[in-house]
Amino acid sequence: MLSPIALFKQIAVGFVLLFAVATAQAQNDPLPSWNDTVTKQAIVEFVQATTDSAKPTFVPSEERIATFDQDGTLWVEHPMYSQVIYCLDRVPALVAEKPELKDVEPFKTVLSGDREAIAKLPMAELEKLLAATLTGMTVDAFNAEVAKWIASAKDPRWKRPYTALAYQPMKELLGYLRNNGFKTYIVTGGGQDFVRVYSESTYGIPPEQVVGTAGSTTYSYGKDGKPLLTKDPKLLLNDNNAGKPEGIHLMIGRRPIMAFGNSTGDRQMLEYTEAGDGPRFAALVLHDDGEREYAYGPAKGLPDTRVGTFPQELYDEAMNNGWIVISMKNDWGEILSEQ
Amino acid sequence: MLSPIALFKQIAVGFVLLFAVATAQAQNDPLPSWNDTVTKQAIVEFVQATTDSAKPTFVPSEERIATFDQDGTLWVEHPMYSQVIYCLDRVPALVAEKPELKDVEPFKTVLSGDREAIAKLPMAELEKLLAATLTGMTVDAFNAEVAKWIASAKDPRWKRPYTALAYQPMKELLGYLRNNGFKTYIVTGGGQDFVRVYSESTYGIPPEQVVGTAGSTTYSYGKDGKPLLTKDPKLLLNDNNAGKPEGIHLMIGRRPIMAFGNSTGDRQMLEYTEAGDGPRFAALVLHDDGEREYAYGPAKGLPDTRVGTFPQELYDEAMNNGWIVISMKNDWGEILSEQ
Repeated sequence: MLSPIALFKQIAVGFVLLFAVATAQAQNDPLPSWNDTVTKQAIVEFVQATTDSAKPTFVPSEERIATFDQDGTLWVEHPMYSQVIYCLDRVPALVAEKPELKDVEPFKTVLSGDREAIAKLPMAELEKLLAATLTGMTVDAFNAEVAKWIASAKDPRWKRPYTALAYQPMKELLGYLRNNGFKTYIVTGGGQDFVRVYSESTYGIPPEQVVGTAGSTTYSYGKDGKPLLTKDPKLLLNDNNAGKPEGIHLMIGRRPIMAFGNSTGDRQMLEYTEAGDGPRFAALVLHDDGEREYAYGPAKGLPDTRVGTFPQELYDEAMNNGWIVISMKNDWGEILSEQ
Repeated sequence: MLSPIALFKQIAVGFVLLFAVATAQAQNDPLPSWNDTVTKQAIVEFVQATTDSAKPTFVPSEERIATFDQDGTLWVEHPMYSQVIYCLDRVPALVAEKPELKDVEPFKTVLSGDREAIAKLPMAELEKLLAATLTGMTVDAFNAEVAKWIASAKDPRWKRPYTALAYQPMKELLGYLRNNGFKTYIVTGGGQDFVRVYSESTYGIPPEQVVGTAGSTTYSYGKDGKPLLTKDPKLLLNDNNAGKPEGIHLMIGRRPIMAFGNSTGDRQMLEYTEAGDGPRFAALVLHDDGEREYAYGPAKGLPDTRVGTFPQELYDEAMNNGWIVISMKNDWGEILSEQ
């Protein structure tokens, strides 16, 4: 029989060991911000099934393509897409260059600062705003403007740069997939050139792995004879809805084996991903955490806005097809990193 | 003083050592099919300058983008682009499906087998032929057709598959660049979907790193409810001339630091590559070996055909800009692998 002191020592050693094991597990867990739910389990099982060459479900690494919608899937999209905020923020500089715009819609309303009126601008006016702020300059000038904005602009609720509103669990997931030989792509309805400016530093996704809504450019020569590429107000690819699989074919040329979205704009990408042979993984992020982020879609709670919608019929399609619905409330421990 | 036998031994050892050194050098040479000329030296020096982090000319690996035209740069393009031969070869099957085409131009002429008449088909007729054989089917059906053709069709001069007409020195160069952290891309005037079928097995370049002339696709559902992507006869990107830098921006989103071409269709890609900051490398392959391959362009010797042209003014621009002109005759030891 052990003396009390020896027993105490043994218990203490036990605790130390337990603590060490727990720490080691946490360190080995590639998805620490994901709660231990069936969702996390499904992700880990899919990765194990496709990367173990002894299994019939093995997928060669060059075929391990994973595509991610951005707004609402990789970062916060409420109450307004960051790119739209960028366009609104650009208006004063634009009007300073072209003063004749200050009495013309939609610039007049934007300059008024009346948020309700801005929110109600009809689609045709909004398109004028996008064309005026996203095209008509060289790609180098555009990249420099966006880089400057993204480094300084802040979200009013969290008072952080927009790039700090990338979801921590999704950043972990991207890294976990890449460490397992997956090639990760953003497939966004947002502007391809816009997202490319910060995709590498924010998500570890290089510009050439960003597929998005894209306009044409025109090659010409400046006064100094140097080549210029200028952004045209002419749409080449509307990377939403059916445009997502079409854009994936154009830009990647392979069918993904994993796809993540959060709205009807991602439906066809998920369907197309699922329709291939072999193991497939399709998931939708459900915004059901009104406290820590926002609640909308079938979870209701927020008025209809212009950001991605997740109607009941999409939820039903997900259930019918066996797609994973990621509950921000239940599946995610930490939503945003603490920085 | 050494005895004659000892001297003989020493000489023999010397020969063995010399032979071993020469063999080791050949084994270490990443470009064994390139002759030891200033061209090879320029390539090796550029790679050393951009990959040595101690040098001011260092380029981080993510910026090491190298783009290659395909026809005439990576493989033989004379006397006709392989893709055009594919389209001609598809006509009998097409007419079997749609017999009403057999009396319609250009299908009638193609079926006649009259090579001279086929070569003289006007551009508008040729475009009809391309549209009929390259569009109107699903991307999966198209890929399967091209894969079947590429595995069986043979070039009449060399009696080998077209993929065996890839230039050995360029295959070595692609591998050498990749081993030095470069990302290699094909940027071709040919069909993006066509080249993607064999790019990985032929050049080690995955489909997502092939930029080419591309049409739109349409997403729909088959009778079984399964998603389909169908190739449309609608041009999205004409990846020739100014279309090359425009296509590079669309598909890659970064300016290359190295670019290789062989005709006027590559001129803007080389100009655009050269116009960036930091170290730059632009080169044109000159077809000046009428014996081992073909001689055309400023080297003359071949009649004007529909393949890439290299007029004197392009040669002059290359000289003025310090672009490298790769002489197939002088810079390449072996042109095609011996397999």
